[in-house]
Amino acid sequence: MKIELTLDEYFTGVKASDRSILSRAITLIESTKKEHQALAEELIQKCLPFSGNSIRIGITGVPGVGKSTFIESFGKHITNKGLKLAVLAIDPSSQKSGGSILGDKTRMEELSSNPNAFIRPTASAGSLGGVARATRETIILFETAGYDTILVETVGVGQSETTVHSMVDCFLLLLLAGAGDELQGIKRGIMEMADLISINKADGDNINAAKRAAAQVKNSIHLFPATESGWIPQVETCSAINSLGLDNIWDNIKSFENNTKNSGYFTEKRQKQAIFWMHQTIKEQLENRFYQDASIKEKLIKIEKALLNNEISSYQAAKNLLGE
Amino acid sequence: MKIELTLDEYFTGVKASDRSILSRAITLIESTKKEHQALAEELIQKCLPFSGNSIRIGITGVPGVGKSTFIESFGKHITNKGLKLAVLAIDPSSQKSGGSILGDKTRMEELSSNPNAFIRPTASAGSLGGVARATRETIILFETAGYDTILVETVGVGQSETTVHSMVDCFLLLLLAGAGDELQGIKRGIMEMADLISINKADGDNINAAKRAAAQVKNSIHLFPATESGWIPQVETCSAINSLGLDNIWDNIKSFENNTKNSGYFTEKRQKQAIFWMHQTIKEQLENRFYQDASIKEKLIKIEKALLNNEISSYQAAKNLLGE
Repeated sequence: MKIELTLDEYFTGVKASDRSILSRAITLIESTKKEHQALAEELIQKCLPFSGNSIRIGITGVPGVGKSTFIESFGKHITNKGLKLAVLAIDPSSQKSGGSILGDKTRMEELSSNPNAFIRPTASAGSLGGVARATRETIILFETAGYDTILVETVGVGQSETTVHSMVDCFLLLLLAGAGDELQGIKRGIMEMADLISINKADGDNINAAKRAAAQVKNSIHLFPATESGWIPQVETCSAINSLGLDNIWDNIKSFENNTKNSGYFTEKRQKQAIFWMHQTIKEQLENRFYQDASIKEKLIKIEKALLNNEISSYQAAKNLLGE
Repeated sequence: MKIELTLDEYFTGVKASDRSILSRAITLIESTKKEHQALAEELIQKCLPFSGNSIRIGITGVPGVGKSTFIESFGKHITNKGLKLAVLAIDPSSQKSGGSILGDKTRMEELSSNPNAFIRPTASAGSLGGVARATRETIILFETAGYDTILVETVGVGQSETTVHSMVDCFLLLLLAGAGDELQGIKRGIMEMADLISINKADGDNINAAKRAAAQVKNSIHLFPATESGWIPQVETCSAINSLGLDNIWDNIKSFENNTKNSGYFTEKRQKQAIFWMHQTIKEQLENRFYQDASIKEKLIKIEKALLNNEISSYQAAKNLLGE
């Protein structure tokens, strides 16, 4: 950041939904510099009372399912309703590759220039805990800036779905029918997180395969245990490229919201998420402190070797490292 | 324990497969007394070089699926092959109720009196970590005593399946066809752990429903991501009460074993499990130390309140508790 803003300038700018200041505030939150982090914390503190008033929607699906096109298309649909949409993506892959696949300039061109939409390509910094914190706090900024609909996209790498799932109200899984109607590349545990499932690319030659896949998923829903909310995951087909089926998805999201708000589950889940992330942060930090200790690092190598040679048990190995 | 045995007496007895000493050794391992724990650790240390030579099979299923009858019947089948079978059950419910549902004297009467079978009704003591340690170490004792086939039963309460899954080679899920062919009471995440699935009670009026349920599960297997081993979960029907379909299950277990031994997955998984349990023990202990601290306990109440009132963020709450 070339010219530093004061806390008040950040806060007033975010509150007034100034796009440039909002963008800089997110960068501040993502910064790993100590002085930025201190300022970011004060900013979040000031924003907290203005946060919470949105529907937070997680979106996931394998690469190739058409997430970008879907968000472009669905985003237009949402903003056409007079709603203010913010889109954020979690992209842990960019840490390793050095470049973000979400930073691709050709993505969501139309939505990017929409005055009622704000797109933040990626929030990824450091550990999963770091990414999670930045994402959660960016949501707080969005809400303070008056965005009432928030999409959090996960690119489906590693643990990112679980992370996103534990910070949104509602989780949408996009699937694709394969050549033989089979579903492609579903990751372990992902079906059970979904509140809404849509088979995308239900267009052209693919319509019937998509419909059969949707029917098949629908029939299998009962193989997955009932969701905590009591909501039965809805299964639909859509064509993001032809803007078909988006109304259905939106209606389902609103039903889910009404349903869970009436039952009290909506608020309860948000409270549980807040508590969950507090404990997660504590656990991560306790483990960091332990495993980053130089003497532990040294000991660990020897002890793992003894453990794999069946010389000591897992429990003895742990006790040894803990110095008990 | 009325008369204490020495380390050597325990070890020699276990090694000689003396049923009474084996039983007392397991009790020693489950004991929460400091002096018993020290002796137990020495015993495990001595047994470790003689452990490992078995197939460890996890069995789960909802109450009513007929696990006891299945184990009785399947156990007879296994011992008839000249194998030595040990059965252990994880039953966290007995902590709360004070009595174990597995302690029921009428369970597995025939198998209990079989000289080639050893049944330990329950290994549950203290925390999940404690139960896990006792179970893992009991397996070491069984193997030292020459048991080549080990069944670990979980009663399906709380996290017990996940715990058992991470200490066995192979996981068998018993299911039941419902009146409308639907499957009953499958818990979140359980389908994805299974290497083998069998629809029990495929007898009498229920045969066709069981077959339809098996076909349905078979068709849905691809909705679950491929298992790490590359093995495709086998789906069968069985009737424990009529001893039907048990051969199939045993053949599948042996195929699974051969398959994963040839690919190297078998050994790799056991090594990963050993490392996993070391880190689990460390994590549990780090958290215990932190959360059992009196000043943390006091602070936590206030901070949770502030968090739920939206006065501080999850991250700030954590930092505050961590004293950062």
